[in-house]
Amino acid sequence: MYSQRLFKLGDQASPIRELFNYGQEQARILGPDKVFDFTIGNPSIPLPDVLTEALEDIIKECDPVALHSYSVSAGHPSARKAVADNLNERFGTNYGPQNLYFTCGAAAALCATFAALTYDENSEFIALAPYFPEYHNFVETKGGKFVAVANAPDFRLNLEALEAAINPHTQAVIVNSPNNPSGKVYSEEEIKDLARLLERKSKEYNKPIYIVTDEPYRELVYGGLKVPFIPNYYRDTIVCYSYSKLYSLPGERIGYVLVPPELTDSESVYKAIAGAARTQGYVCAPVLFQRLIERYPDFPVDFSLYELNREKLSTSLKEIGYECVEPEGAFYLFLKAPSGDGSEFSKLAKEKNVLVVPGVGFGCRDYVRVSYCVPTERIERAMPLFAELYQASK
Amino acid sequence: MYSQRLFKLGDQASPIRELFNYGQEQARILGPDKVFDFTIGNPSIPLPDVLTEALEDIIKECDPVALHSYSVSAGHPSARKAVADNLNERFGTNYGPQNLYFTCGAAAALCATFAALTYDENSEFIALAPYFPEYHNFVETKGGKFVAVANAPDFRLNLEALEAAINPHTQAVIVNSPNNPSGKVYSEEEIKDLARLLERKSKEYNKPIYIVTDEPYRELVYGGLKVPFIPNYYRDTIVCYSYSKLYSLPGERIGYVLVPPELTDSESVYKAIAGAARTQGYVCAPVLFQRLIERYPDFPVDFSLYELNREKLSTSLKEIGYECVEPEGAFYLFLKAPSGDGSEFSKLAKEKNVLVVPGVGFGCRDYVRVSYCVPTERIERAMPLFAELYQASK
Repeated sequence: MYSQRLFKLGDQASPIRELFNYGQEQARILGPDKVFDFTIGNPSIPLPDVLTEALEDIIKECDPVALHSYSVSAGHPSARKAVADNLNERFGTNYGPQNLYFTCGAAAALCATFAALTYDENSEFIALAPYFPEYHNFVETKGGKFVAVANAPDFRLNLEALEAAINPHTQAVIVNSPNNPSGKVYSEEEIKDLARLLERKSKEYNKPIYIVTDEPYRELVYGGLKVPFIPNYYRDTIVCYSYSKLYSLPGERIGYVLVPPELTDSESVYKAIAGAARTQGYVCAPVLFQRLIERYPDFPVDFSLYELNREKLSTSLKEIGYECVEPEGAFYLFLKAPSGDGSEFSKLAKEKNVLVVPGVGFGCRDYVRVSYCVPTERIERAMPLFAELYQASK
Repeated sequence: MYSQRLFKLGDQASPIRELFNYGQEQARILGPDKVFDFTIGNPSIPLPDVLTEALEDIIKECDPVALHSYSVSAGHPSARKAVADNLNERFGTNYGPQNLYFTCGAAAALCATFAALTYDENSEFIALAPYFPEYHNFVETKGGKFVAVANAPDFRLNLEALEAAINPHTQAVIVNSPNNPSGKVYSEEEIKDLARLLERKSKEYNKPIYIVTDEPYRELVYGGLKVPFIPNYYRDTIVCYSYSKLYSLPGERIGYVLVPPELTDSESVYKAIAGAARTQGYVCAPVLFQRLIERYPDFPVDFSLYELNREKLSTSLKEIGYECVEPEGAFYLFLKAPSGDGSEFSKLAKEKNVLVVPGVGFGCRDYVRVSYCVPTERIERAMPLFAELYQASK
């Protein structure tokens, strides 16, 4: 006798993961050059050498007992201070260590945040489609209600639809910009509009409607695009961050929740997040990587490989005739299936060993997601197959 | 508006942590040599050099993209195989990677396991006092009921009391041997008796009553004492393990759940644990340390510092007149307060800057816990104060 609900969750592989596993198996059977895997968002740019050296230095220099011992749950104060100082320098804010809670990656940060904001069984959390599929589980397994609102076809914020979905039970709106899977970066105007809407609704309902912004791709933008730092536009913003994509450390699990001092009930919300983390069996974030982040809370990583891939992918696909919105950040392209059925397109593509994730899990069934954190030649060699698929599915 | 329940959990520091923080503060004010901190179970023996070198080798040799990328959620299959092979060699078992699920430490392993076994709101989990205080939260935040049963004064298994507490709602008995805080190691006889009892009750209720064994101190035993490997005595045993204490890596968060193939509904329980991990915002265990564990799933660590401390501490305390049961494993001594009031004793000790954790949180209010993973001289210099405390509290 065991939990049926959790059995189902564990039994059902994420569609992304399932396709990825299939790709691994096909690569074993046919050879890796015969499979064109565009599924997983596994960063393909290495951790910068200077950070690898820092890792080696930390291990060499630090007494191992001190190095590997527990930190306080929220993370080493000095490491949190380094992150806070860096954010303050970049965004003109006034954060301190007390506003940061380190977590094992952004997934854990989001789970703790949603749990903390789940006031009762009616608490609602709104995500803007397309959205990262796991938000649904993260919210609903904490007892809240997950609500999806479709953004515009060009992935711009759909404020009318959002306003219609907001009601007195709404606890938070989940923002993910740069967006997985579309690569959309909300402009300053869009953020201001969003802030105005939520301020108005918060007043109307006499309670704060929080923004929970999930921003692991914050630094991963193209063409020098500015990404508005949302807490500077809306005070009731909680930031969930991870170093997985910036530093290509997704397996090491290091991220944080930022609870700005200006947030309504800031200290209490921070404590609720700490309480939530505790119920997740969380003790502290991996300490070796806390030390690394302390030395390098930020770093000018060279993303030109992703830039090249983005350009190649979207240009080639457009030349074939596909409709696609140019991604502005992250390393995914959300591609409209020519037939309008993303699941069907993914299935046909799979038969050619081109692996792209159906958009239905992201809230947009007429799309597929193409990850371009891959070797450039994989994009080049897959293009003839994308052309065949286009002809076949028109 | 945020979760009141989680706010309370986050607001209430663990008594261990609170005392530790106080000690840190006092050390800053008075100087570290004036404070005698026996609170936290932070391992004081360094990670063996050979493992530090392995860490350095892994970083040097592995391509950083491959090294730091996501593993599958359960952990790299080769790393799981290394752990399984090692367990099989040591315990004559037949485990494979499919029986292991890596987690961010034992706390996460326990949370996932309790969640998976929480069948409905009546599900009960029995812990044997003295027990690790966090078990209470781990169980109850998953919706289950935590039940404490007092072991015998010498910390031997109290089977009569346990039997009386078992009922049709009992999902599992939590075993922690070597025990935190008492250092007790259940003998083979005690384990066999426990197994017999649970087999009988499982038959009676026509459902498996699981043992969840929390064993981070499995290798940390004295005098060559044999620690029975519980799955070899009772098939419905789930093992939660962590490398925190063996390798002094508590901050790096690397452990696992072992679900033996012989367990009733083994594959389904494994999947429920995977589902539970997913709801905890877990993606994978820190991959650098997965690689380390793959190279060294086991290692003959030299625990003679702990052995020396154990001997000094228990001999000196007994000489003063204290009653204490000699710990057989781990690095804690559970000391009977001469007045019979552990909280009072802890308070008086605190006034002398001797920091010991009240036993009430462990389910035994007449005791205090003394951690001896400390520099040996701290024990020596604290003894006169322990003597004063003995006189004062008789």
